[in-house]
Amino acid sequence: MAVQNAFEQKKKAILNEIDSTQPDLSPKGTIDELCLPIIDLINSSADMVTTSSCSGRVSVFLEGTKSYNGEVKIGGKGQGGKWLYVTHDRGKVIGWLDELRSKSEFLLEISRNQDLVEKVTGSTRYILYKYEPFILHVKCRDFQVASKLYNEAMSCGFRESGIGSNNLVAIRINIKLDVPIGYLDEDSSTLKFFVGPEYINVLDSLSLNKFDENTKKMQALYEKIKRELLNKSPNSNAKTGVIPAETKEERRERKKKEGMERQRQLKSTSNVL
Amino acid sequence: MAVQNAFEQKKKAILNEIDSTQPDLSPKGTIDELCLPIIDLINSSADMVTTSSCSGRVSVFLEGTKSYNGEVKIGGKGQGGKWLYVTHDRGKVIGWLDELRSKSEFLLEISRNQDLVEKVTGSTRYILYKYEPFILHVKCRDFQVASKLYNEAMSCGFRESGIGSNNLVAIRINIKLDVPIGYLDEDSSTLKFFVGPEYINVLDSLSLNKFDENTKKMQALYEKIKRELLNKSPNSNAKTGVIPAETKEERRERKKKEGMERQRQLKSTSNVL
Repeated sequence: MAVQNAFEQKKKAILNEIDSTQPDLSPKGTIDELCLPIIDLINSSADMVTTSSCSGRVSVFLEGTKSYNGEVKIGGKGQGGKWLYVTHDRGKVIGWLDELRSKSEFLLEISRNQDLVEKVTGSTRYILYKYEPFILHVKCRDFQVASKLYNEAMSCGFRESGIGSNNLVAIRINIKLDVPIGYLDEDSSTLKFFVGPEYINVLDSLSLNKFDENTKKMQALYEKIKRELLNKSPNSNAKTGVIPAETKEERRERKKKEGMERQRQLKSTSNVL
Repeated sequence: MAVQNAFEQKKKAILNEIDSTQPDLSPKGTIDELCLPIIDLINSSADMVTTSSCSGRVSVFLEGTKSYNGEVKIGGKGQGGKWLYVTHDRGKVIGWLDELRSKSEFLLEISRNQDLVEKVTGSTRYILYKYEPFILHVKCRDFQVASKLYNEAMSCGFRESGIGSNNLVAIRINIKLDVPIGYLDEDSSTLKFFVGPEYINVLDSLSLNKFDENTKKMQALYEKIKRELLNKSPNSNAKTGVIPAETKEERRERKKKEGMERQRQLKSTSNVL
């Protein structure tokens, strides 16, 4: 009987989930499209499998309730926090305020002269504007592979990366925005902004720059992993950071073939646990 | 002849530097006082040594120049960035704007109605207001110790921790603020703020909350390391998060004794490299 080792069993289970049509556990329910090239690259190695990812996003988040039994909890996001807007798409950053105005369950009020700031207390539920960069978790066959992946990620500028338990590598970079832009007035169900549209334009334009920087870093990491961990020449199918286009149908077809190939390989391995 | 192994040599060299009166490589040149209890605790273990730390801080940072040879560099902090204000002291957060006004080489202009935002371009050098939490790097004797320290840090909420090369554990948490609050008008050497003092009060009060949350997390980590890695009872010298007070003189005396004890121990070890 062919026996898979623990890593191979885990990898197979993860890839089956990725390939299924069921939504995953993220709020969005699917893998970010911009992550697909690097995910496919990593999963093409017999020694690695991706377990979670985010390609980078802009979000506007309403903090949850911070007071329990009359006691105000310091710090933390609180219970019942709510995303007012989330986009992973550089093209959908500009205009979020208008979209929020037309779709939100709350009223919106924007104050240019910051008189609203006076209403802030310890239990205020803030509205936070965030840019969060690319993050990727990769489970590796052994510590040697994890260590190599970690080193390559660090060398591409992912300076907050680290190896965790069970050879799981977290690839992280620190290009963030985390800005309080207003609060929820619970009495009137109104989102009160203490910054004006001009300031929001500044935030949006900084986010666009961060999206660009983030994409460059992802591409550098793609090339590095391809060259150093998969020993493929940089010209074999992606030149200087340009990741090849593939239609959804092509991808599905390729994944199917790869899955069959994996099954075949797994059947022929006989590593004992 | 007594021979130290590589970890013990490294630890000894690091501790000698910590104990010297020379400034270290950080901008401040000394270890943050709030880090001393956890640093001393960790260094009292034969299996760990701290290599760098920050107890948490508020800073106001002026980005460097982003344009080289007429070409604007997207993202990054640029060359020649400058700290306008830095404090690791919760008591010195409020009032930084007044202090900056009285001491800065630049003029200050504060606009309540955000008309200054219009002047922002791709090469604008922004003023960023940041809260950065506690961070600690610990070199461990072997992967087993590193792994245990990593797991305990994660269990205390330091969710961005990771093990790097050579069993170096980075202990990190994600409680940040990263807010653009203005820019440098180079023509008039003026720091132009596009947020008013009321908004800065909101940022400062959020930072104070983050300092408190940060201190709680540091204390939880202190207790956890003491209990789980040093096998000391929580009551042996620090009760429920209260870290014992020690004067500078007491500390110096204790460090001297500990240094002599270490020397004695090292002389009696005979681990070969």
